[in-house]
Amino acid sequence: MNRFDNDTQVERIDERRWRAEVSPAWSIGVNPNGGYVLAVVLAAARDAIEHPHPLTTTAHFLKPATTGPAEVHVEVHKVGRRQSTVSGWLVQDGVERLRVLSSFGDLDTFAGPSRVTATPPDLPPVEECEQRSEAVLATLPEIARRVDLRLRPGVMFGPPADEHEAVFEGWVRFSDEREPDVASLPFLADAFPPPALRVVTASWIPTLELTVHVRAVPAPGWMRARFATRVMVDGLLEEDGELWDSAGRLVAQSRQLALVLPG
Amino acid sequence: MNRFDNDTQVERIDERRWRAEVSPAWSIGVNPNGGYVLAVVLAAARDAIEHPHPLTTTAHFLKPATTGPAEVHVEVHKVGRRQSTVSGWLVQDGVERLRVLSSFGDLDTFAGPSRVTATPPDLPPVEECEQRSEAVLATLPEIARRVDLRLRPGVMFGPPADEHEAVFEGWVRFSDEREPDVASLPFLADAFPPPALRVVTASWIPTLELTVHVRAVPAPGWMRARFATRVMVDGLLEEDGELWDSAGRLVAQSRQLALVLPG
Repeated sequence: MNRFDNDTQVERIDERRWRAEVSPAWSIGVNPNGGYVLAVVLAAARDAIEHPHPLTTTAHFLKPATTGPAEVHVEVHKVGRRQSTVSGWLVQDGVERLRVLSSFGDLDTFAGPSRVTATPPDLPPVEECEQRSEAVLATLPEIARRVDLRLRPGVMFGPPADEHEAVFEGWVRFSDEREPDVASLPFLADAFPPPALRVVTASWIPTLELTVHVRAVPAPGWMRARFATRVMVDGLLEEDGELWDSAGRLVAQSRQLALVLPG
Repeated sequence: MNRFDNDTQVERIDERRWRAEVSPAWSIGVNPNGGYVLAVVLAAARDAIEHPHPLTTTAHFLKPATTGPAEVHVEVHKVGRRQSTVSGWLVQDGVERLRVLSSFGDLDTFAGPSRVTATPPDLPPVEECEQRSEAVLATLPEIARRVDLRLRPGVMFGPPADEHEAVFEGWVRFSDEREPDVASLPFLADAFPPPALRVVTASWIPTLELTVHVRAVPAPGWMRARFATRVMVDGLLEEDGELWDSAGRLVAQSRQLALVLPG
């Protein structure tokens, strides 16, 4: 089994509780990545209802999760023809770590007008983008070994500068070449480093809240991604993300509210 | 008392429940506007915790509310130094109508870097924008009498056309000149008609989910607003909104996931 599927497995305990194991493989320092922990909660939520696709998911991060055993609790608010809405939350040592609200549906059942004016990032081919060397990876958090990011040339991680834009664009896939699917899109929408690091020094930029819309079932292959911050005031910022699949379709849109901690 | 404050009053029943009255003054047809019902839930949430500002709020709309009595339930997930996180939900006739997840904080306590590259919509002066006449208002839903929208000239409501952009830009304030504040921003972020109506025919475009970030305490006076849809696929669309205050600051960012119902 690939790493992501292995590390997001949950086991049902009863009607409302699932057992999970938070893996150390997706951490940034000692803290498991928020998008990874969200994927664990969504695995339990998916098990609780019939609809297959997390159309819209919001996570509020209350306290960093730790690696090791956890329980996921799920409460179903609505089961409808078009959507099922649930709350889910992850508990470790009796403390709630994140709270999730999500509506699931079936993207294959929607019918109606289509009109797209957004366009995917105009990137050079994957092989011309920056690949992180083993030497660089050794200096980066654990999660960087799980996700293969190929940034636009000339936009490497590095010291911030006033003349930079707070934007990261690049290709993305799992390092073990597991194909993207709807279950992994909320995670992949949180797998880039914060683009605000291009313009400010920070010890970290924790996410207070992350919302991801899954808009289409992704085709296999590399995805194009764009993450940008346009408004940072008193350290509080939004980060908007888009993921486009190899067929040129927008498959996920994300926005998070995050906070710059002094560097 | 002004209409918005009057119609979003809640009365505490016990530790976790508030009594409310859903007013018919904010309806679209027979359904109370979703942003208005959200404001009622946020009034109870605000009463349950100490932090004053709803930094980030997500609402999932489960079933249209009706006018008349309602109960709001609030569960507090976290009370921290920087944020308090709560769920809130509105119940009528024993049925949950919307489910809200919100983190409150105090915008005045944040300190950190600022850098803004977004700009407010470049609008003609208020008096040069389109004011809806009494004759037009008589044909519009009740909510149109509560909110004074002055759209960019030439971008009136009317039949959709392929050459249009799915964008509404204009000035906005309450019709009774109640000043904007953090409590009313989530409502005002849902008070424009859907910009998708500029390009497609629909009987309505109900919101499945709405997320609003309150980014600053608004200055008094007219606000500038921009709402746009860039990706509509099989009738499913996002709508991104921005509200800018009279001092030229971004005070709210919103995104909703909505669905085109055939016209």
